[in-house]
Amino acid sequence: MDIVAAIDSFKGSATSLELNQAVLDAWQSTEGKKVNLPVADGGEGTAEVIHHALGGTWRQLEAIDLLFRKKICRYLLTSYQGKKIAVIESTEVIGIDLLTQPTDQTIRLASSFGLGELVKDAQNQDVDQIIVTLGGSGCSDGGLGLLQSLGARLEGVTEGNPLLSTKKIDLRNLQEDFGEVELLIAADVTSPYTGAQGAARLFGKQKGGSPETLAFLDGQAVRLAKQLATDYGIDLDRLSGSGAAGGIGGALLLLGAKMASGFTVVSQLIGLEEQIKKSDLVITGEGRIDQQTIHGKVPYGVARLAKKYGKTIIALCGGREKDLGELAKFLPSVFSIQLGPISLEEAMRHEETLTKVSILSENLSRLVENE
Amino acid sequence: MDIVAAIDSFKGSATSLELNQAVLDAWQSTEGKKVNLPVADGGEGTAEVIHHALGGTWRQLEAIDLLFRKKICRYLLTSYQGKKIAVIESTEVIGIDLLTQPTDQTIRLASSFGLGELVKDAQNQDVDQIIVTLGGSGCSDGGLGLLQSLGARLEGVTEGNPLLSTKKIDLRNLQEDFGEVELLIAADVTSPYTGAQGAARLFGKQKGGSPETLAFLDGQAVRLAKQLATDYGIDLDRLSGSGAAGGIGGALLLLGAKMASGFTVVSQLIGLEEQIKKSDLVITGEGRIDQQTIHGKVPYGVARLAKKYGKTIIALCGGREKDLGELAKFLPSVFSIQLGPISLEEAMRHEETLTKVSILSENLSRLVENE
Repeated sequence: MDIVAAIDSFKGSATSLELNQAVLDAWQSTEGKKVNLPVADGGEGTAEVIHHALGGTWRQLEAIDLLFRKKICRYLLTSYQGKKIAVIESTEVIGIDLLTQPTDQTIRLASSFGLGELVKDAQNQDVDQIIVTLGGSGCSDGGLGLLQSLGARLEGVTEGNPLLSTKKIDLRNLQEDFGEVELLIAADVTSPYTGAQGAARLFGKQKGGSPETLAFLDGQAVRLAKQLATDYGIDLDRLSGSGAAGGIGGALLLLGAKMASGFTVVSQLIGLEEQIKKSDLVITGEGRIDQQTIHGKVPYGVARLAKKYGKTIIALCGGREKDLGELAKFLPSVFSIQLGPISLEEAMRHEETLTKVSILSENLSRLVENE
Repeated sequence: MDIVAAIDSFKGSATSLELNQAVLDAWQSTEGKKVNLPVADGGEGTAEVIHHALGGTWRQLEAIDLLFRKKICRYLLTSYQGKKIAVIESTEVIGIDLLTQPTDQTIRLASSFGLGELVKDAQNQDVDQIIVTLGGSGCSDGGLGLLQSLGARLEGVTEGNPLLSTKKIDLRNLQEDFGEVELLIAADVTSPYTGAQGAARLFGKQKGGSPETLAFLDGQAVRLAKQLATDYGIDLDRLSGSGAAGGIGGALLLLGAKMASGFTVVSQLIGLEEQIKKSDLVITGEGRIDQQTIHGKVPYGVARLAKKYGKTIIALCGGREKDLGELAKFLPSVFSIQLGPISLEEAMRHEETLTKVSILSENLSRLVENE
């Protein structure tokens, strides 16, 4: 039985590479190929996963993070089918995990300026494509910081979150022309730039914003979107995903970027479909599997491919929802690695997780290989 | 695929019957027979399990429990292959769960007298065999209370645990002659009557005994065993299992009882081996599966039979030990029903347990039936 393991990282506990290896090492079979295929969906670890598949070099540079603190950042330079690619994880500079605690104060301070610096740097590396992952951002500045770093003039802007103070956006000096460089956004959000489903009002709460701040940010976004529509004929709210990452989606779309789901981008670069096609059994998983998993998460993406080729699929997780709804049609066999009652904290320990994954894998293999 | 479910009760959470039914109802298959076979290993619920297989009537009577409190007790009257059988669970009258809290005081008070009353009552029901299960007792009286209720004279005995005060045992009036009635002990303990591995010193601690009390009880047992050897030529310490249930094993052996493991007794009465032989897949389990499970517990007993006939076996549990040692050779596929981190208290809720068993069963069935 040829097996491919493509488990997403258990966030805060173990990486995709480690989990896959634990599963494959413990799987009891005398023959068959075992393929460890680290995978991600555009969240943290995405560049690592692509690096594992394609190799490449890490470019390091000093940039500023979302609170304007100096930070050594890195992004991946690699190549795929003859194209030179930069893979920038936005969490490197504007990740919510860079904040001790997201509060109303941090959302009023945070800017996406640093991300623009990385994009600019990548432009100078003679690349054919820049991929920017947008998951896990901690700012909600409408992408104005990023535009500013790339040459846009923000009239009236003061310190902190530029969306709070900007009166008018002047795009004339915007380094809009990326020449031959293709800009690709990896994001799973289709929200518009403004409104109830927009950047501030839908996602701002989890970034710490108070209702007042979020209402004000959304009002500013509405006003500036109108100004951009009037002055440049660009209607951000008509661009699907412009509300991703607090509006950075809109800013990048304005620069001519294309958008694709994180899982789609990653699975193509790592050759996931070919590996699944060649396998007999596919093992996937994620820290938590629930009804949200169907919205672009790794286990769902892997399961769709397994279904396409009629492969048996097993999913492992730290925890799962009782009723998986529609997802159960794609993932008929989802097992928690827990061995019994346990606290969340204890359950998440690195070594503990890998041991439990091994035990579950071994026990499943004896059942499956026995049939 | 013909399936037999023979899961031991999850103590304090769900019965064998319920767990089997949850597994079978959730198992996704279009064909195949499904057999719900409640099972036990001589612990609590054993008489229920035998009743489920063989039918019969419950005999109710007032007896006294281990602390001499009046209690309505019951035991099973049934028949097997033309033999009329009484099944007495000793926990009905002398169970440790009848104590709010086992303490040094309770062990100094508790007597097996009430169990003797049940045995005596069963003798008068015109039965061919009396089965007495010995698991889970809360007393450590060397079985003297039982002997007393059946006519033995305990010289010098005062109130409370008779092993504390008895100077000499006079068996002359003992209702030793059970006539045609066969006495069968269902117990998994092979301990001797006295010594470091004996009734008081090995099991007395979990019954609340202080080191002083246990040493004294053991000393008394040594002295009385010697007296019985001298006066009646019976050497209790040479009888395997005489230390079971605080020495009740010895008392019953002295009455001519035979001894068998609880699982062996139950599995024969319910026809477990025949059912396993006829099945394709066997599902067993217990609340907890660990390295102790190999010592006569249901999952091990079921697994041995499954191995004998080359059947696939799956075990479910609330919690399992990481390393199952030798047991893994018999139970290669042991799965916890937990869906993620959870407290013991929450995990054990009745409905919660049955729901999780259903989910695991359904997910396993899709994997197994898919192969």
